[in-house]
Amino acid sequence: MTAPTVDTARFLADLHELRQIGRFKTGVHRPTYSPQDMESREWLMRKMAEIGLAPEMDGVGTVIGRGEGAGRRLLAGSHIESQNEAGWLDGALGVVAALALARSGLAVDPIAFADEEGHFDVGFLGSRSAIGDLTEAEIDGSRNRTDGTPLRAALKAAGLEGRPRLTLDPARYRGYLEMHIEQGTTLENAGERVGVVTGIVAIWQFRLIVEGAQDHAGGTTMAERRDAGLTAVRLLAAIDAEFPRVCGERSTWTTGRIALDPGAPSIIPGTADVLFQFRDVEIAVLERMEDCLRRLVQESNRRERCHTTIEVLSRAVPAVCDPGLMDALSAAAERLAPGAWRRMPSGAGHDAQNLARIMPAAMLFTPSIGGISHHWSEDTKEEDLALGVEVLFEAARSVLAG
Amino acid sequence: MTAPTVDTARFLADLHELRQIGRFKTGVHRPTYSPQDMESREWLMRKMAEIGLAPEMDGVGTVIGRGEGAGRRLLAGSHIESQNEAGWLDGALGVVAALALARSGLAVDPIAFADEEGHFDVGFLGSRSAIGDLTEAEIDGSRNRTDGTPLRAALKAAGLEGRPRLTLDPARYRGYLEMHIEQGTTLENAGERVGVVTGIVAIWQFRLIVEGAQDHAGGTTMAERRDAGLTAVRLLAAIDAEFPRVCGERSTWTTGRIALDPGAPSIIPGTADVLFQFRDVEIAVLERMEDCLRRLVQESNRRERCHTTIEVLSRAVPAVCDPGLMDALSAAAERLAPGAWRRMPSGAGHDAQNLARIMPAAMLFTPSIGGISHHWSEDTKEEDLALGVEVLFEAARSVLAG
Repeated sequence: MTAPTVDTARFLADLHELRQIGRFKTGVHRPTYSPQDMESREWLMRKMAEIGLAPEMDGVGTVIGRGEGAGRRLLAGSHIESQNEAGWLDGALGVVAALALARSGLAVDPIAFADEEGHFDVGFLGSRSAIGDLTEAEIDGSRNRTDGTPLRAALKAAGLEGRPRLTLDPARYRGYLEMHIEQGTTLENAGERVGVVTGIVAIWQFRLIVEGAQDHAGGTTMAERRDAGLTAVRLLAAIDAEFPRVCGERSTWTTGRIALDPGAPSIIPGTADVLFQFRDVEIAVLERMEDCLRRLVQESNRRERCHTTIEVLSRAVPAVCDPGLMDALSAAAERLAPGAWRRMPSGAGHDAQNLARIMPAAMLFTPSIGGISHHWSEDTKEEDLALGVEVLFEAARSVLAG
Repeated sequence: MTAPTVDTARFLADLHELRQIGRFKTGVHRPTYSPQDMESREWLMRKMAEIGLAPEMDGVGTVIGRGEGAGRRLLAGSHIESQNEAGWLDGALGVVAALALARSGLAVDPIAFADEEGHFDVGFLGSRSAIGDLTEAEIDGSRNRTDGTPLRAALKAAGLEGRPRLTLDPARYRGYLEMHIEQGTTLENAGERVGVVTGIVAIWQFRLIVEGAQDHAGGTTMAERRDAGLTAVRLLAAIDAEFPRVCGERSTWTTGRIALDPGAPSIIPGTADVLFQFRDVEIAVLERMEDCLRRLVQESNRRERCHTTIEVLSRAVPAVCDPGLMDALSAAAERLAPGAWRRMPSGAGHDAQNLARIMPAAMLFTPSIGGISHHWSEDTKEEDLALGVEVLFEAARSVLAG
């Protein structure tokens, strides 16, 4: 009996097949529960069935393919939906890689968690649900961030209403492996081809709501006006100036949206609605950043004529990857790409951070060309994709043999 | 023969009747060419016909009611559409006041100019068209600022396609009178009831487009990122700090909209699209403000990793009101509200500023409760509305008798 090998050509062919679903330019548009997203989930279930797995889609759209056989298995995967008009790899890569491992004969259950991308405001819907950390009440209260559709309505439209939700059994698994594009330029700039992830930053998300007074932009003097947009601009400029003093070495902070209401050229904005987030791998740093944010909002409220309130949208816990799984990934990387890999933290959030709460979890990064991510032009060299799945396969084989 | 008088009860009744068209809470929602807006224009034409005027709607929706009789007449009016979910008086007040003057027997042609509110990006569509300052090419290129509908498509949907556009004949008129709410608190704070407008500020409108690089908010370090939103925030904060050094006493500047693309919580904005405007009564001040804006954008482009370009949307010319018409309004105000009126500039733009380019023009302000404007809660005391139309009537009578 020869040792099993992973079929990289078939793996790449599967990736390109999936790329056709919701194709947008060279990327894909598969927002969660869109027809394109549901089509990709059905596609995945067919692929799972073809290789002898028992596919199942749960009440939030998470797809798992369970294999048979004695002994503990590995869980592997990622997510299959995309950001709007985004890249073809992102989550799809980790799902198709898991499929390749299962096809090779390894005791791997592939999984595609729903809405890792956070189209709905609950955040990490699928993986949080699968580890038993999502209440029905949270589902009741959740809405689509783009168009406001209630999550319940979206689930119903996607035909998922009333289906039971999957709860993973940690006793079944030795751990969870997730392959993903780096979404940065660290590997590319260093001329390296594999990243073994040491930990995953936590994202703390906030909504800053500034309340002013909507008024006519001509009739109201500068001294009289309570311009919510201007208060938001001053606050965000202050954050930009202060955060470097409290942040960690690899912290990031981002204002993704500034919505001025009503948003017309001749009306002083009555409210400003700002989506703000920061990320770090250390709780202590995250807490310092939140303290700083709260102090700056307090100062703004003392200084400005518009009042700002902070709404906490989510506060995740940073995840540390499992040393045993990291060692297996590192050994495989060194064997297949000697000297061309590194250990590194993940600046982006991933489903693995939730899985790490119930079982050993680890991640492998492939380089992103130009570091581009969440955009349709996202890409990775095919030889790097193939190398990545080979490293993942070698590591999984060694873990399952151990 | 008794001297004609103005029927203030009928005037108030008309205002309340018009308020029912597109009613929203205590205000109205009559965006330009919406069914509600077109209904209000039809309503106005019926009212004009009832009092013996010949009503006519032109190719952009401007409604005029011409009366018969020898001698030069007065033109009076304003606009009838509203901002979205806005106040019941605003432009409607001046139109219904003009109707009241015509009903009283004065040689007045009431007019309602289309889209003074600028739902379409051409700006002052009706009055610019009526003074012969609007090309077909400008109409071809114009779109709705809210939903992007081409102006041509909106005109077609409103049944206006192919109708000729009105061009006013200055020789027919002694001048133009427009009554309007103040949209500020100057009169209210001083306990005054009438404002005689001395001049109308010009609005200079700009679009600031910041080009960065869309990227993942976790994978991209602070040092690598080209965050268009952050560059916009820093630029707007710099404008806020610098403009007080170059502006005039009554200048205003407003950022009405900041659109970050794609506007998602975990994506670094690749572009920021900002609507910015400033206003003053003096060309020299307006030019100083534009110079300052251009200097700040230049500095930003030297300092930042994102490039900002300035697109000029419109540059209006400030208007000076006609001394003779102002004197007639002042005399009437002093007779009917002795000591409770003042001369004052208008911080808001009005159709009168375009009319002033082809005939003598003047404006009268009534107080705005709390200075609220462009919001459904906008209001004015009924006794102030009645006093306003009486002053307008007295002034018009004296001008027509002169």
